[in-house]
Amino acid sequence: MNTQEIANDLVNLCKEGKFDESGEKYWADDVVSVEPAGDNAVSRGKDAARAKGEWWANNHEVRSVKVEGPYVNGDQFAVRFIMDVTDKNSGQQMHMDEIGLYTVRNDKIAEERFLYGG
Amino acid sequence: MNTQEIANDLVNLCKEGKFDESGEKYWADDVVSVEPAGDNAVSRGKDAARAKGEWWANNHEVRSVKVEGPYVNGDQFAVRFIMDVTDKNSGQQMHMDEIGLYTVRNDKIAEERFLYGG
Repeated sequence: MNTQEIANDLVNLCKEGKFDESGEKYWADDVVSVEPAGDNAVSRGKDAARAKGEWWANNHEVRSVKVEGPYVNGDQFAVRFIMDVTDKNSGQQMHMDEIGLYTVRNDKIAEERFLYGG
Repeated sequence: MNTQEIANDLVNLCKEGKFDESGEKYWADDVVSVEPAGDNAVSRGKDAARAKGEWWANNHEVRSVKVEGPYVNGDQFAVRFIMDVTDKNSGQQMHMDEIGLYTVRNDKIAEERFLYGG
């Protein structure tokens, strides 16, 4: 598969709400997953990326999600995620607008980096 | 200036239609500007980046432009550009949806990479 095909498939999975499945399918075993900030900004390895996703899913209720893209250049692609979520602990409602930037090697996601909108 | 401040300023300049000015202000002398494809996909240096912009401006009429972002992580930021343009030579009308991914070093854009939407 080329980068465009992987990007298209990942976007389709995410549009169906299958975020976990998209990771399981395309994360490399040694994937590096990078948030802009936080105590655990950098997650190294598939287990750590999965754990981050599980923590997030357990602590947030997704009220709506919109997925735009993909955008492709060479071995990289980008996807925009717009989400309305509720923090289950605080009850706070949040509007999230971010771009996931993915780097592909050997048909797997070697790195994912999330850029946050204002 | 930090990445967020440079990103905000570049987006504001682009929203005002000052694309050239944003480049002149923030391109490093050795900036690398990367398109996904084409005979001149990689432009190296400020002169080459400027020449690409001038070629583009001379050959396209911009009918509308929407600028979204910025999105930031560390030394990188992304901006989405949605444009309706007319190719001045062929008359063909094009809808363009792309993401510019910028890497900042020493308060300048060291690299800009454009990812194209479908």
